[in-house]
Amino acid sequence: MAKAPLATAVSRAGGIGFLAAGLDASTISSSLSQAKKLLDHQDQDASSSPLPVGVGFVLWGSDIASAAEVIRKFVPAAVWLFSPRKVADLVTWTEKVREASDGKTQVWVQLGSVAAAVEAAGLCKPDVIVVQGADAGGHGLARGAGVISLVPEVADALAREGHGHIPLLAAGGISDGRCVAAALTLGASGAVLGTRFLAAKEAELKPEHAEEVLRTADGGVSTVRTTVFDAVRGTTGWPADYDGRGVANRSVDDAEKGMGVEENKRLYQEAVAKGDGERGKQGRMITYVGTGVGLVREIQSAADIVEGLRRDAMAILEQTRAKF
Amino acid sequence: MAKAPLATAVSRAGGIGFLAAGLDASTISSSLSQAKKLLDHQDQDASSSPLPVGVGFVLWGSDIASAAEVIRKFVPAAVWLFSPRKVADLVTWTEKVREASDGKTQVWVQLGSVAAAVEAAGLCKPDVIVVQGADAGGHGLARGAGVISLVPEVADALAREGHGHIPLLAAGGISDGRCVAAALTLGASGAVLGTRFLAAKEAELKPEHAEEVLRTADGGVSTVRTTVFDAVRGTTGWPADYDGRGVANRSVDDAEKGMGVEENKRLYQEAVAKGDGERGKQGRMITYVGTGVGLVREIQSAADIVEGLRRDAMAILEQTRAKF
Repeated sequence: MAKAPLATAVSRAGGIGFLAAGLDASTISSSLSQAKKLLDHQDQDASSSPLPVGVGFVLWGSDIASAAEVIRKFVPAAVWLFSPRKVADLVTWTEKVREASDGKTQVWVQLGSVAAAVEAAGLCKPDVIVVQGADAGGHGLARGAGVISLVPEVADALAREGHGHIPLLAAGGISDGRCVAAALTLGASGAVLGTRFLAAKEAELKPEHAEEVLRTADGGVSTVRTTVFDAVRGTTGWPADYDGRGVANRSVDDAEKGMGVEENKRLYQEAVAKGDGERGKQGRMITYVGTGVGLVREIQSAADIVEGLRRDAMAILEQTRAKF
Repeated sequence: MAKAPLATAVSRAGGIGFLAAGLDASTISSSLSQAKKLLDHQDQDASSSPLPVGVGFVLWGSDIASAAEVIRKFVPAAVWLFSPRKVADLVTWTEKVREASDGKTQVWVQLGSVAAAVEAAGLCKPDVIVVQGADAGGHGLARGAGVISLVPEVADALAREGHGHIPLLAAGGISDGRCVAAALTLGASGAVLGTRFLAAKEAELKPEHAEEVLRTADGGVSTVRTTVFDAVRGTTGWPADYDGRGVANRSVDDAEKGMGVEENKRLYQEAVAKGDGERGKQGRMITYVGTGVGLVREIQSAADIVEGLRRDAMAILEQTRAKF
């Protein structure tokens, strides 16, 4: 989930970039305007093709009416529906999106378990199912499998229930061509990368933030799934079975040592007040990244990242087949 | 980690089966005697080849002197060293094993992080490095990555530090040919499977235990990493950064609801006293499995499992390369 310069650069390179609507659907309108300009896209009319970017919505905190309005106006190529309070909410959103875009906007749904993926497939008939493994950065199910077992188990369950035609994408811990090749052998039709694109030129992160992403190694040990980040930020609305993965920092450390939420929150707010404060183990600024962060080592253009992923994945499949 | 009938069947099928020495190295002697008989292996002398099975040791709880004695007597093809109190203990064990077997027994070390894998490679020069991802069943690092990012990050780090020649194996969440193919594209030379072999005929599980393995689906949601299993069993010696993954059962549920350890332990002991008590969500018997348990759906011979894994992995690499 990105801002317009990154999302459009990914789409131009042959992927599809998603704009983050996040928790405030109203801000998405200006992002879409910017994307439209960057892509030099014509105004919508009955014959025109959708705007070739997606928009991601955090369902539990988003207003469906304003989302529908934005979709009607800009007709993005896809929406990405995530974290409904209940799977039934996905159905309402799917209907609204298809109605607002006259069926032109694809509906992608992201789930974290086999049961939820099968239920969503049956209820929504989405255009794409994304399964999010436990290695993913940012929010996701607190209790879940990595893509190594999640993707094949979901693929089998979808096929068994008659949904095998829906393209399945893998998310979580995927950072380079080797991971993309692995996702394909596991049964996915493609892969979703978030953390890797934090190091895209077009992400335009502040230098301290970009440095933190490049510096962080040993992704499984240096990051952690926790509710502490939400607690100190005061983003308390996430469904109870969600938490988030980010760099294990001082807030996490303090919470594990027994510090109460109020005190921890106060220290976080002090750190934020200092401007873009300290990151890493000793800092309190939140750096949401997946376990694949250790594979992210240089800033590149989005086009170079997308092209490299495709080239490397194909080469690795070829080499691996030849070797064994 | 298995008993002799399973371990020898895996070796005979072209894999290598490992006997579990577990926490009591003295019991391994009778397992090795049985393996030797089952494999119809000649007595050791200077010219003979090692016994084609491995032995796995839980280092923090194992007596190195009795381990060395057993290795000298039986000369297994490999030892598997896991969970040292400190990485330096791996060095002592490596030296003892090589001395006891006159260099005939390969030293395999299993680690769960990039830093530990690189340190162990430098200190021990092991014959094989196994990296264990967070999806693995049984004991492992409480905080870690899945193989999707762990394997490529370790492969790169080993290559960078001049240890790229050491074969790297992937463990954790790997249950079928798709997962094996994925492990290979990620940079592993092979894969380690535990949970899948619980459903081998030769594992000879009690029917309730086997049924639980076959019945459990949605492996990321139905299993959990926790220290509760150790707490109720009273196995308190594991290093502080370890926990274990198994079916999320009533003990876990009670602990999450705030039940104290003593009460939880008492209820566990009552359940055990009833014989092989209830398993699953409502039970208290411990079923250690990885997130790949949802891909384990039938009892097969070890030979059929090994042969199927190899055949499917090769077919999937071929198909995936052709498809994309």
